[in-house]
Amino acid sequence: MVEHSLAEVLHPQSIAVVGASDDGRGSQYFSSLIDFGFKGILYPVNPKYTEVMKIKAYPTVKDIPGPVDYVISAAPAPQIPRIMQDCVEKGVKGIHLFTARFSETGRQDAAELERNILRIAKEGGVRIIGPNCMGVYYPKMGISFQPHFPKESGSIALASQSGQAAGEIINKTTQRGALFNKAISYGNAIDFNECDFLEYFANDPEIKIIMMYIEGPKNGSRFFNLLREVTRKKPVVIIKGGRGRSGTRAVSSHTASLAGSTEIWNTMISQSGAVSVSNIEELVDVAVSFYFLPPIVGRKVGVAAGAGGATVLAADQCEEAGLDVITLPQEIREELKSQGVQIWDWISNPADFSINMGDENFGPQQLLKMMAMHPNFDLIIASVNIPGMGGPPSNPNRPPRKGGPPWANAQMSIDEIVNQYKQINDYKPLLGLIQDRSPDAKDINDPREEQRWKTACEVTGKFIELKIPYYPTISRAAVAASKVIGYYQMRQQ
Amino acid sequence: MVEHSLAEVLHPQSIAVVGASDDGRGSQYFSSLIDFGFKGILYPVNPKYTEVMKIKAYPTVKDIPGPVDYVISAAPAPQIPRIMQDCVEKGVKGIHLFTARFSETGRQDAAELERNILRIAKEGGVRIIGPNCMGVYYPKMGISFQPHFPKESGSIALASQSGQAAGEIINKTTQRGALFNKAISYGNAIDFNECDFLEYFANDPEIKIIMMYIEGPKNGSRFFNLLREVTRKKPVVIIKGGRGRSGTRAVSSHTASLAGSTEIWNTMISQSGAVSVSNIEELVDVAVSFYFLPPIVGRKVGVAAGAGGATVLAADQCEEAGLDVITLPQEIREELKSQGVQIWDWISNPADFSINMGDENFGPQQLLKMMAMHPNFDLIIASVNIPGMGGPPSNPNRPPRKGGPPWANAQMSIDEIVNQYKQINDYKPLLGLIQDRSPDAKDINDPREEQRWKTACEVTGKFIELKIPYYPTISRAAVAASKVIGYYQMRQQ
Repeated sequence: MVEHSLAEVLHPQSIAVVGASDDGRGSQYFSSLIDFGFKGILYPVNPKYTEVMKIKAYPTVKDIPGPVDYVISAAPAPQIPRIMQDCVEKGVKGIHLFTARFSETGRQDAAELERNILRIAKEGGVRIIGPNCMGVYYPKMGISFQPHFPKESGSIALASQSGQAAGEIINKTTQRGALFNKAISYGNAIDFNECDFLEYFANDPEIKIIMMYIEGPKNGSRFFNLLREVTRKKPVVIIKGGRGRSGTRAVSSHTASLAGSTEIWNTMISQSGAVSVSNIEELVDVAVSFYFLPPIVGRKVGVAAGAGGATVLAADQCEEAGLDVITLPQEIREELKSQGVQIWDWISNPADFSINMGDENFGPQQLLKMMAMHPNFDLIIASVNIPGMGGPPSNPNRPPRKGGPPWANAQMSIDEIVNQYKQINDYKPLLGLIQDRSPDAKDINDPREEQRWKTACEVTGKFIELKIPYYPTISRAAVAASKVIGYYQMRQQ
Repeated sequence: MVEHSLAEVLHPQSIAVVGASDDGRGSQYFSSLIDFGFKGILYPVNPKYTEVMKIKAYPTVKDIPGPVDYVISAAPAPQIPRIMQDCVEKGVKGIHLFTARFSETGRQDAAELERNILRIAKEGGVRIIGPNCMGVYYPKMGISFQPHFPKESGSIALASQSGQAAGEIINKTTQRGALFNKAISYGNAIDFNECDFLEYFANDPEIKIIMMYIEGPKNGSRFFNLLREVTRKKPVVIIKGGRGRSGTRAVSSHTASLAGSTEIWNTMISQSGAVSVSNIEELVDVAVSFYFLPPIVGRKVGVAAGAGGATVLAADQCEEAGLDVITLPQEIREELKSQGVQIWDWISNPADFSINMGDENFGPQQLLKMMAMHPNFDLIIASVNIPGMGGPPSNPNRPPRKGGPPWANAQMSIDEIVNQYKQINDYKPLLGLIQDRSPDAKDINDPREEQRWKTACEVTGKFIELKIPYYPTISRAAVAASKVIGYYQMRQQ
């Protein structure tokens, strides 16, 4: 097999940043490369300076003495044909055009400029990522378009037509502990397009999960054919921008893409075996689930999502997402009875945290563990009560007690609480619920609120260490689980 | 009109708390009443103590010297018949039974005990709230079942069959600045039921919005007839617990309710003019929208939801929620052109924050204001970028500038930023987007993260002061707006 053309572009030994300066956007690219420890040679290019960030600067790409493999351009649009010409002469392999103001403006002259640039590149053998995009995040190579992205590598790949979406997806996914191998924001896609990225990611052994944000595929039929192949090997999770009338309009002025028919898109995606999502939160939830969960092919879920009404709504939302909230197996009831649990006939699945089990040593956590150990269950969804973050209303019959369930006992340490969830996860894949805390105006000067926030951070950190995914609502956990299961069921057929 | 029987029960001049002690649940009720400044006389009842929280305690309700209007019982179930008997003899008007373990256990003897209690109450003229519920939150009367609920009053009423749901709804709604007049958690509803609460709230002039969490109506036909009347006067927002097979099971063991057919329920609700929602977040979003927004009867929305991909997805999600993301009116284009805005023909609705308007004094915020002032628009949805919380990727052509849009200028004060949104809201109802910040493990010791969190709190506080509702995602804002508009459109017909 011939090496993929993207492989060469993504592994440069030297990078020139055109438009680098001590401030402004070019500098953010330049300083990110320094900060991420890019191992090759870096060249700032800017006719206005003799050095940038204490590194010798060159007026043009042509003036650089050594070879240049990759160029990042933050220069204004009208300068790009000349820069592209320089790249051709210099033997540059790939250029990322952060530069915008091309066909997306809807203007004839800008579209003509874009075509002209592509012509020069094609004739001269330079490949283009973009224009109008954020480019490459590839932490292992020391390449990033934001200085604050994690420097650690994972197994996710992302191809996003939008730079904003790429940033939001990377931030929200890595915050939940799932890390990227490569992410590429590719904008107007005049050269490399969605098919190239998908094909490359499919064959990259370091990549296990592929995320895509697409406004309009440049080559629809090749894309769907590829997709059908790739999904047999790796999950591909896709969000489509430009689904309605106004979104289609926005797509045209954003990346000059043709959004196409939503009906045709939906049919093709569902036939391809890809996982389709409709907002960024869902995209992140599904990717995080693929990242941490083993392959699950059954839909029978054991649930413990709080007390009373929360239990009822949890059951509804799991079922509406396509999971099967089965009744408690008879063996578990018999076991409860033989253990002397008074309400063996009352308690059920979902487990209700507000029901006192009537036994010092038996609580919902023990019931959850019995469900996790029973072969009837395929997965567990359980809420995580964080000390001080407000638990279910307590029951007069149930004073807090040592050794009891974590939500009843403020004295338990965070490690003890997290360990109870680890024990569940040892038997069955576990999805944790940890609620978001919206900024609360009235709590701004309340030190307990700050403590709660820090405790929550500590708990999520420990879940990530244990490789247990967590979600802010039951409905988001259930929808993500159902989509992941649907994918593995498709693979099984 | 005869005074509603609930009116008498909800306005006691004296309250006895049975089971009050210096710790345990009875004490939480007792200390909440003290804390909330209940203006009548308070009596702790507990045979084990001579005083509770330094107030003289009595062994039984009958032993109290003065009259007792209202009793809160946290005593175990087997004691309730005797306590009810005491209440009858004492001439108590209403009793709230926090006490659980009745018909919801599914046991014959417990259900028999429940029927027995109701019989004593009916014969003796004592009205019951509950059993198996949290009871009343009525800040103006100084009554609360949680010490941390706000003491300030608003115009929302809540009737919730679940105590957990009541607590969660009150916490999440008040956190967003919308306050309650009365909230009642009513559990098994053996005496007062959903119809009584709905009827009472409908006629209460202090109440403008009614929220309900219902597992199974005790009197379906009366409820739907009432609902049809009430929705002509006030919005009623309803969430149904127990929609699927497993939820129905959970409902039965939670409040012993018959969840009934979801199809019939959905049809009845939609015919009644009530607003139906499917999770707590949506319930809160809709109530907060009714609380802060004026009546809106048109669906034409002006949107600014960030940059690039976020703009595209915002358009899609608004349209999918049933809003109309109209094109920019010709008058605005002409005005932009005459003001010398270079890209007058490119910019559109939704406004894209990443598109440089090419003018020192013109940015998306100005475009938003023009939309707000134009008669074609009915409402505006705009994201609020909080300094330090990460904005859209910047554009090489756009350095941060004084007087520019808030997302570009970290130097602007919070007051200056908030004031720009106030100016929009002066012309058209505005819904703000302020993203939740999930607890982020890696930020736990980052002082900037703490600062961001505090800044976010400050901004939400100012939005609440200005009576501008805010939402964590564009999709939640759009769905809430659409439901509110649907309600007012129904009223108009």
